[in-house]
Amino acid sequence: MTESSPIRMSIREIAERIEAEVIGDESLEITHTAAMDDAGPGSLTYLKEKSYQKYLPDTQATAVLLKKELSEQCPVTALVVDDPYVAYARVSQLFYPLKEVSPGLHESAVISAEAQISKTAQVGPRAVIEAGVIIGAHCYIGPGCILQAGSRIGDGTRLMANVSIGAGCVLGQRGLIHPGVVIGADGFGFANDQGHWVKIPQIGKVVIGDDVEIGANTCIDCGAVHDTQIGNGVKIDNLVQIGHNVVIGDHSIIVATAAIGGSSIIGGHCAIAGGTGLAGHLELCDGVTVTGMSMVSHSIHSPGIYSSGISVQETRQWRRNHARLHKLDKIIKELKDELRSLKSESE
Amino acid sequence: MTESSPIRMSIREIAERIEAEVIGDESLEITHTAAMDDAGPGSLTYLKEKSYQKYLPDTQATAVLLKKELSEQCPVTALVVDDPYVAYARVSQLFYPLKEVSPGLHESAVISAEAQISKTAQVGPRAVIEAGVIIGAHCYIGPGCILQAGSRIGDGTRLMANVSIGAGCVLGQRGLIHPGVVIGADGFGFANDQGHWVKIPQIGKVVIGDDVEIGANTCIDCGAVHDTQIGNGVKIDNLVQIGHNVVIGDHSIIVATAAIGGSSIIGGHCAIAGGTGLAGHLELCDGVTVTGMSMVSHSIHSPGIYSSGISVQETRQWRRNHARLHKLDKIIKELKDELRSLKSESE
Amino acid sequence: MTESSPIRMSIREIAERIEAEVIGDESLEITHTAAMDDAGPGSLTYLKEKSYQKYLPDTQATAVLLKKELSEQCPVTALVVDDPYVAYARVSQLFYPLKEVSPGLHESAVISAEAQISKTAQVGPRAVIEAGVIIGAHCYIGPGCILQAGSRIGDGTRLMANVSIGAGCVLGQRGLIHPGVVIGADGFGFANDQGHWVKIPQIGKVVIGDDVEIGANTCIDCGAVHDTQIGNGVKIDNLVQIGHNVVIGDHSIIVATAAIGGSSIIGGHCAIAGGTGLAGHLELCDGVTVTGMSMVSHSIHSPGIYSSGISVQETRQWRRNHARLHKLDKIIKELKDELRSLKSESE
Repeated sequence: MTESSPIRMSIREIAERIEAEVIGDESLEITHTAAMDDAGPGSLTYLKEKSYQKYLPDTQATAVLLKKELSEQCPVTALVVDDPYVAYARVSQLFYPLKEVSPGLHESAVISAEAQISKTAQVGPRAVIEAGVIIGAHCYIGPGCILQAGSRIGDGTRLMANVSIGAGCVLGQRGLIHPGVVIGADGFGFANDQGHWVKIPQIGKVVIGDDVEIGANTCIDCGAVHDTQIGNGVKIDNLVQIGHNVVIGDHSIIVATAAIGGSSIIGGHCAIAGGTGLAGHLELCDGVTVTGMSMVSHSIHSPGIYSSGISVQETRQWRRNHARLHKLDKIIKELKDELRSLKSESE
Repeated sequence: MTESSPIRMSIREIAERIEAEVIGDESLEITHTAAMDDAGPGSLTYLKEKSYQKYLPDTQATAVLLKKELSEQCPVTALVVDDPYVAYARVSQLFYPLKEVSPGLHESAVISAEAQISKTAQVGPRAVIEAGVIIGAHCYIGPGCILQAGSRIGDGTRLMANVSIGAGCVLGQRGLIHPGVVIGADGFGFANDQGHWVKIPQIGKVVIGDDVEIGANTCIDCGAVHDTQIGNGVKIDNLVQIGHNVVIGDHSIIVATAAIGGSSIIGGHCAIAGGTGLAGHLELCDGVTVTGMSMVSHSIHSPGIYSSGISVQETRQWRRNHARLHKLDKIIKELKDELRSLKSESE
Repeated sequence: MTESSPIRMSIREIAERIEAEVIGDESLEITHTAAMDDAGPGSLTYLKEKSYQKYLPDTQATAVLLKKELSEQCPVTALVVDDPYVAYARVSQLFYPLKEVSPGLHESAVISAEAQISKTAQVGPRAVIEAGVIIGAHCYIGPGCILQAGSRIGDGTRLMANVSIGAGCVLGQRGLIHPGVVIGADGFGFANDQGHWVKIPQIGKVVIGDDVEIGANTCIDCGAVHDTQIGNGVKIDNLVQIGHNVVIGDHSIIVATAAIGGSSIIGGHCAIAGGTGLAGHLELCDGVTVTGMSMVSHSIHSPGIYSSGISVQETRQWRRNHARLHKLDKIIKELKDELRSLKSESE
């Protein structure tokens, strides 16, 4: 929802906004931000990692965000900051602000008379707002979004398009929910009655904190009895599955196609990488990182980095290793047996 | 679609409905169901597993569903049943019934004059119903749902929101289809003509049995030539992929983010756990369970439990194991060679 | 979007269209195409693989597409071609052509006065077309599709239902985009400021080539700075994730539930099988195939087939192998140590 805008700012103005020290000409005008390897005139770029240092001497950028120790090598104006990448993010937000909300209700939206919608909110074409819904100030409810009865959207939150919010669900402030997201559909709960599945009514809600971003087509199920809870500052990527009753702590991040099984509790400042799966009813303490395509089937009580993904080899080679893996227990037993018998012979 | 309702029932009434034996005061009033670890006054709870037995002596619940052998330890009214969890599911359905359907067609829905819609069905705002569609009694077609030409929805089936049903697809009775589900999009079929992909028209339908639940944003492709078939009582979770021509037997269950490759046939009473993938053109007999994040690349002809998921370790440790795995065939060959030469020496 | 149509063609006519040599009666009429194992009278079938050769002597088909060397064994009319499966695809397209587009704008669509829509295009019910959108000749914009400001759809491209196209995104000609697809939502980019995630505006677009098919509920994120690019002839299945800045070369294919991490570059004529994940910032050269449920965590510079998926075993057996795998480094060290000490003893 950003757009390339005709914003222009002097280096001085930018430095004041992000509290950077300027070394060089602070009167120059910046027109956009750019990555180090293709930053041209008018751009502000950043030096995040050592591997990009080689581009610094020849940069065409007008200014560079970097750490103190690299400022002497900078051939153009330097903006000295503690964390160049964070500074770049903040400056980019100045140049590419969120599209402004245009308050008002589109005539094609279907809005219950019993909904409360802030006068500063925008409801787009074909949105459906059921009874009891409360929409806060400066919200954007995009085209085709469906807000079921009694759901509540906090101030400044944006639902981009075709988002579905279940009855009674609560979203915090300044959220950003991408197209196709489904929040508050029934959790997956059944009892098996002699081979037939009997549905357990899913009566909890989903409660989402402030400053949460949720990627396209991600699903967050409502709780079975208690609520599913997503903490403040949590960032969730596309096509992620969050089961019923899950609790995710503040400022955790979950990457695309990951899946969190029902009733699992994830601490704060965790990172679950892409394609990773957590079984249900687990606990991860604060500060756990799980790398990509891993499976977590037991609770983790120590912060740290965990993995079980296997990286590819040529198929011919992998097949041989795979065949050994499928017999690993037997092979190792046999090797140990042979060793033992050799040993006893040699004694 | 359940809602907390002001339903009140006596224990006697509940016991009659689920055919339970009551030990204790059967005149007490129940107002809701609850999990054992936070059941308060007025609640009916259940004792499913031994691990929850510790909560029984101090329970604040008004009554407990449990097995005969535990009834003596119950400090409150006991409802004795064979399967407490199934009984809990059934009682919960009494307290949290499906929201009632309000017959009628919303004025914002776009409905073909050539569609046949039961007078007892509800069509929500902005639904699109094309020519030849047949919608049965007491159906609920939620906001934004799209039913393409000639599709048929059986009595009592509910499509929650933004569901897309392809031309000619058939859904059975009492189904529950969650938001964003896509049924009957083209299967993935191409022939490779010297490097270019030539589309094979996908002319089959999807045919779904009775009492099927399908989770949010799940996709079930139409058949290439024959139909894709989902049996009675099948339960499918969120973000599941079902390829063209797949056949799933009655009462099987497929958990979130699993994927079933095209033309595979899954028997009845199977369970495919989350994140698991089946290749195409396989057969699984009745009664196969595959645990989470496993890969099935060959047919399975014996009922039982199958796995290949690997659970996480600390990354430092996993990396060492992973490095060995990538050379496993070579390492084992070398070990065997050394053993052989030692053996021949010792002889 | 195909439909069983009352098309009839003589074998002669078909042979001319696909440049096949006819052996047998070329005046017979064909009414449909069918698979070898259930081809009945009136059908044209094909013999793709040796494994289906057994059906040939007793086929009830009216004609068979096959290679020259098998034509003598064909009991009915043979159409001799180089690649029977490709020929079958092309003939099927004759019998099941794409549904015709009915030019015009549905009255329930919400269309900006500043959009340019070809007179030969069809815009379905409840579509939303924002300002600056350009829709080419013979396009089909299905029900519920949302085209944000400035997006462009090439001639002959079809968006089936509830598709969401982000601002400024560009789709080529003859594309087929299935329901629920989200193109151009924000990529997943954040800088971590002392534990809090700061959003990096995602200002790139998605640019898609000609003849691209995209499966249901798939997500393709917009670029962070540069554009995400999908080449010509690329085929993407359902529920696939394509991260920001990804570049996919011409005629590559990506199967269901695969995920491509941000900034990765995939060559032409690659095949990424179902459930496979690529980390971000990788390069795959032309002609790389990765088999199902594999993880690619390093770049691949040689064409070929790569794997790391593990296929299931009975759980009892897998658990023993899994336990050994979790200690593999330690076990192998110990075995080597024992061998070494035995060796030194025997010397």
